[in-house]
Amino acid sequence: MAESWFFLGNFEPNFRPLVVIELAKGTKEETIEWFTKRIVDKKANGGEYSMIFCAQLLVKPLVTENGDENIYLVGASHLRLLLGAETVGLVKECNDNSMRTFTYSSRKTFKYFADDNHNFLTMAECQYIIKHELENLRAKDEKMIPGYPQAKLYPGKSIVRRLLTSGILVQIFPLHDREELKKLRHSWYGRVKVGYQPLDEIRCYFGETIALYFGFLEYFTFALIPMAVIGIPYYVFAWEDYDKYVMFATFNLLWSTVILEVWKRICAIMTYRWGTLLMKRQFEEPRPGFHGVLGINPVTGREEPVYSSIKRQIRIYLVSLPFVCLCLYFSLYVMMIYFDLEQWALDYHEENESNFSSLMLFVPSIIYAVVIEIMNRIYRYAAEFLTSWENHRLESSYQNHLILKVLVFNFLNCFASLFYIAFVLFDMKLLRQSLATLLITSQILNQFAESLLPYWLQKRHKKRIKKRMCSLKADTGLSLVEQVNLEKEMGTYFGTFDDYLELFLQFGYVSLFSCVYPLAAVFAVLNNMTEIYSDALKMCRVYKRPFAEPTANIGVWQLAFETMSVISVVTNCILIGMSPQVNALFPDSKMDLILTVALVEHLLLAIKFIMAFVIPDKPRHIQIKLAKLEFESLEALKQQ
Amino acid sequence: MAESWFFLGNFEPNFRPLVVIELAKGTKEETIEWFTKRIVDKKANGGEYSMIFCAQLLVKPLVTENGDENIYLVGASHLRLLLGAETVGLVKECNDNSMRTFTYSSRKTFKYFADDNHNFLTMAECQYIIKHELENLRAKDEKMIPGYPQAKLYPGKSIVRRLLTSGILVQIFPLHDREELKKLRHSWYGRVKVGYQPLDEIRCYFGETIALYFGFLEYFTFALIPMAVIGIPYYVFAWEDYDKYVMFATFNLLWSTVILEVWKRICAIMTYRWGTLLMKRQFEEPRPGFHGVLGINPVTGREEPVYSSIKRQIRIYLVSLPFVCLCLYFSLYVMMIYFDLEQWALDYHEENESNFSSLMLFVPSIIYAVVIEIMNRIYRYAAEFLTSWENHRLESSYQNHLILKVLVFNFLNCFASLFYIAFVLFDMKLLRQSLATLLITSQILNQFAESLLPYWLQKRHKKRIKKRMCSLKADTGLSLVEQVNLEKEMGTYFGTFDDYLELFLQFGYVSLFSCVYPLAAVFAVLNNMTEIYSDALKMCRVYKRPFAEPTANIGVWQLAFETMSVISVVTNCILIGMSPQVNALFPDSKMDLILTVALVEHLLLAIKFIMAFVIPDKPRHIQIKLAKLEFESLEALKQQ
Repeated sequence: MAESWFFLGNFEPNFRPLVVIELAKGTKEETIEWFTKRIVDKKANGGEYSMIFCAQLLVKPLVTENGDENIYLVGASHLRLLLGAETVGLVKECNDNSMRTFTYSSRKTFKYFADDNHNFLTMAECQYIIKHELENLRAKDEKMIPGYPQAKLYPGKSIVRRLLTSGILVQIFPLHDREELKKLRHSWYGRVKVGYQPLDEIRCYFGETIALYFGFLEYFTFALIPMAVIGIPYYVFAWEDYDKYVMFATFNLLWSTVILEVWKRICAIMTYRWGTLLMKRQFEEPRPGFHGVLGINPVTGREEPVYSSIKRQIRIYLVSLPFVCLCLYFSLYVMMIYFDLEQWALDYHEENESNFSSLMLFVPSIIYAVVIEIMNRIYRYAAEFLTSWENHRLESSYQNHLILKVLVFNFLNCFASLFYIAFVLFDMKLLRQSLATLLITSQILNQFAESLLPYWLQKRHKKRIKKRMCSLKADTGLSLVEQVNLEKEMGTYFGTFDDYLELFLQFGYVSLFSCVYPLAAVFAVLNNMTEIYSDALKMCRVYKRPFAEPTANIGVWQLAFETMSVISVVTNCILIGMSPQVNALFPDSKMDLILTVALVEHLLLAIKFIMAFVIPDKPRHIQIKLAKLEFESLEALKQQ
Repeated sequence: MAESWFFLGNFEPNFRPLVVIELAKGTKEETIEWFTKRIVDKKANGGEYSMIFCAQLLVKPLVTENGDENIYLVGASHLRLLLGAETVGLVKECNDNSMRTFTYSSRKTFKYFADDNHNFLTMAECQYIIKHELENLRAKDEKMIPGYPQAKLYPGKSIVRRLLTSGILVQIFPLHDREELKKLRHSWYGRVKVGYQPLDEIRCYFGETIALYFGFLEYFTFALIPMAVIGIPYYVFAWEDYDKYVMFATFNLLWSTVILEVWKRICAIMTYRWGTLLMKRQFEEPRPGFHGVLGINPVTGREEPVYSSIKRQIRIYLVSLPFVCLCLYFSLYVMMIYFDLEQWALDYHEENESNFSSLMLFVPSIIYAVVIEIMNRIYRYAAEFLTSWENHRLESSYQNHLILKVLVFNFLNCFASLFYIAFVLFDMKLLRQSLATLLITSQILNQFAESLLPYWLQKRHKKRIKKRMCSLKADTGLSLVEQVNLEKEMGTYFGTFDDYLELFLQFGYVSLFSCVYPLAAVFAVLNNMTEIYSDALKMCRVYKRPFAEPTANIGVWQLAFETMSVISVVTNCILIGMSPQVNALFPDSKMDLILTVALVEHLLLAIKFIMAFVIPDKPRHIQIKLAKLEFESLEALKQQ
């Protein structure tokens, strides 16, 4: 049967598999035939809203050792990929070094373009194009998926999404390129070296979102180094002069504003080079999990599920919000238990002074750190469930609501105890100790849970599969079948959310109480150095290759980091105002002290906002290039 | 001679004069011939960067009684105007009620379009188009203006701008339409009525910028009414309970945030209806006063004057900034003199208690208010000179620097004395009295200086001209010649800057110290009611008709008002904290009081920011319409 539709596409002798489609075992023949025909068939021209009913890609079944035919490899001809690049609006560099939206008709003006150069599009771009084409494959006049009457379709519904939600399609993932990956691994973390990460290569292999995360991680680590360097002598010489702490805190606050503003500029430079800064946002389709009654979308005029915005608001404000508040309350309750434990440990230590009892002093903090991690993870699942139940139409709105929920809880969970110690107990020594324990424990836990553990599991699993393979035939490098079988069992990388969250909390530890614990920056730098390596390992070895996702900035995280830096101005000013040394400066009047602190705080906030306003978000040369493009498109419009 | 070039254009029997060009008396014949030929000649097709070398408009000399030929009337054929509407990117309503960019080829799809309907474009739009065409008339290969070797030209230089800077062209202004104006005047301020202004008619006659100002003025007045209504009983019953003041201040602060956010939405609704929300920003040419050495513009690649950005920065930071600081210092110095005078008046009143001496108490405040007005006006000239000397390339950047300079000075000038009284002298009674005097004096002065005085001057002047005219011929309504002669002598309206500034300062008086003087809102409302009428009078009777200027929002003023509302949170919290009644609540500890005030202040600020973030800038139905347009253009791109 396979051959019957195999030749419907433009047969290309050097078929290069790019994307793997795994169907459920025992999927009906007619469904497979219909689906693959749709993927392979030539496009009809035009049509209402130029919907895609056929993708004109290449498909090949993967024959596994036990003869199952449930895995298919998808590829595409070079020409098809170029046309797809135009559809998704890829931006590439031209011969005159400017960046332009790629169109097939103007292909000759692009740098490195040659009709026989199949590397003009990177493999990640090709896979992104194929994913885009597959996801936009729409039902024409089918009422249901052939063979599955319960899987309803309506004109314009994305076929792949319906197949996914009805469980016929297990997964779609892009294939690794063993050669490329080896090269990338080598230059990324293969040898111990001091220097930048190969961000452009990472971008070519994993796409812009992931490259931007690694770029931010690297930038953030470098940006923390000045703080760490200034922080070390405070520890070494045990400086306790508060004028020095004031200096450190002030530097810290202004520095954190500067680094966040400068990041925007660096990000603009990078994404301009990668072309995503110029890429037009495509119209967003409903996210896969979205459901509702069939109606007319007011924007597109197409038939699609519609869900009342009022119902969603009710779910958000009457269920999600109270639930989040309950969780926050529970988190505070756990915190109070921690403080009881802490007190108990102190009493125990005072009763029987021994090495063991002094070790016991650290136990409550460590337990609390572990509990926090566990609570964070449980809450995360609840938040995902709730946000998905809120039934957001767009993936971006889903993400924003999820991030907001998770951020608030994580913030409270991680920092409430520190706020309590600082502003209720007024115990600076305990604050410093808790901060250190929390920071270090959470860093170690994260590194372990995030990459080392999965890596180890993955290695064990790989060995098992390899053993089974070896029993079948001689080991002559990994064949395609073996590679696909290995990769389909690997874990799925769910995006950069957790990685950014980790950095966000770290930024909180470093900046919120910077004036009592300058060493935090040092630990953060050390952690991030290894984080780069463990995250790289995670991407290359542990997880399935993720689809590339073009992006122009780090999105809502920029706002989150900026908010944190505003909060840290307030906390640091209060901490400094509370210190005995500063209090000694105002022996007569507490009032003058507080007024001075409030004045300084307002000044710092004002400076922050003015700095954020004055520093342009994009460097001048990028601004000029963007203006040039805009001018040219205006001129072109006039010429018409 | 006139006929020789008059027939070069498409002669149209019903030539409708739209724009008046006044040349200097005694302008050389060859210059006039060259210039008018350029205006009338048919467009050559295309050309590098599609520059316009000929405008294809209609020109007619105006023969005045003394035979001078220095005034020309410019018009255009209906077809030419429609093509011009496409060039400037006008957005009009379609038959399906959506707003779309007008193109000549799709003209049939637009509402009210008919080949013989000459009212499809409003007169203001026609005049804007002609202004745009004239300003974009560019030199081809002339090295200078014929007849004036000192007036250099280079390829691509705007001819009209060079004629203006070299003094050959005295002015260009659009003609009034007596009939339309009469109708507009009648519905606008002709009868005393309660109700909205005819904003759409104002927009049709004066353009979007001015209509938006009047829209904002009206909106702002309505928005102040709740504050005024709540403020009245405080005066009537002489409420001195501070819990009531606290309530008023809190309401005021949140209310001011709400009204500023809601304005953005109303503004979006209006400008969507007017089409300017969708209008693409055109590429900005250098402003007329900009000068520099000839170089290549990196954006356009065209030859144009280039001025080093570093030189400009030096001028800004080493000359303008110190000058502004000096002026601010001087303003504070004047303020201290005022306080000496105030003290002197008080002493005098105490020595000889009489009606005269109690009247004398108000004299210093009145003098100070007058001096402030004078200083503001002098500083304004200095600021304009300095900003123009800074040599900004773009009109927008010039405007921003000017507004910033003027705002800072005006803010200090108007409010420094109040801050001094409130936070240094702690004299709430004096604060209330000064606030009232300053507010009322400045309002009366403004109303007088802005419209009544010019109106009276204008009327006197008009009578004189009319008398002269009548001596020539019988009075049979105003002929075109008379109309042009009248209008060219009228004052020029320099934009909405002063009007917004006045509102901005009024907003300051109302919100900064709202908790000590709730009556301020009442005065503001009363002032604005008459302000609407006097500003309307000013626009219709006193000034030349201004060119319409499409705009989508009130620009930098939105930011200015928002900043003011943030500052007023701080001042109001401090004022409430200082009140004896609130102090009485914390009898033991001043510290608790200050901490509470600081906490409340931070909470209010946080609520403000969250509210600004949560309230969408555009109403949902506008968002959907915008999304629909964007979606359609994406689909159209794909169809290609």
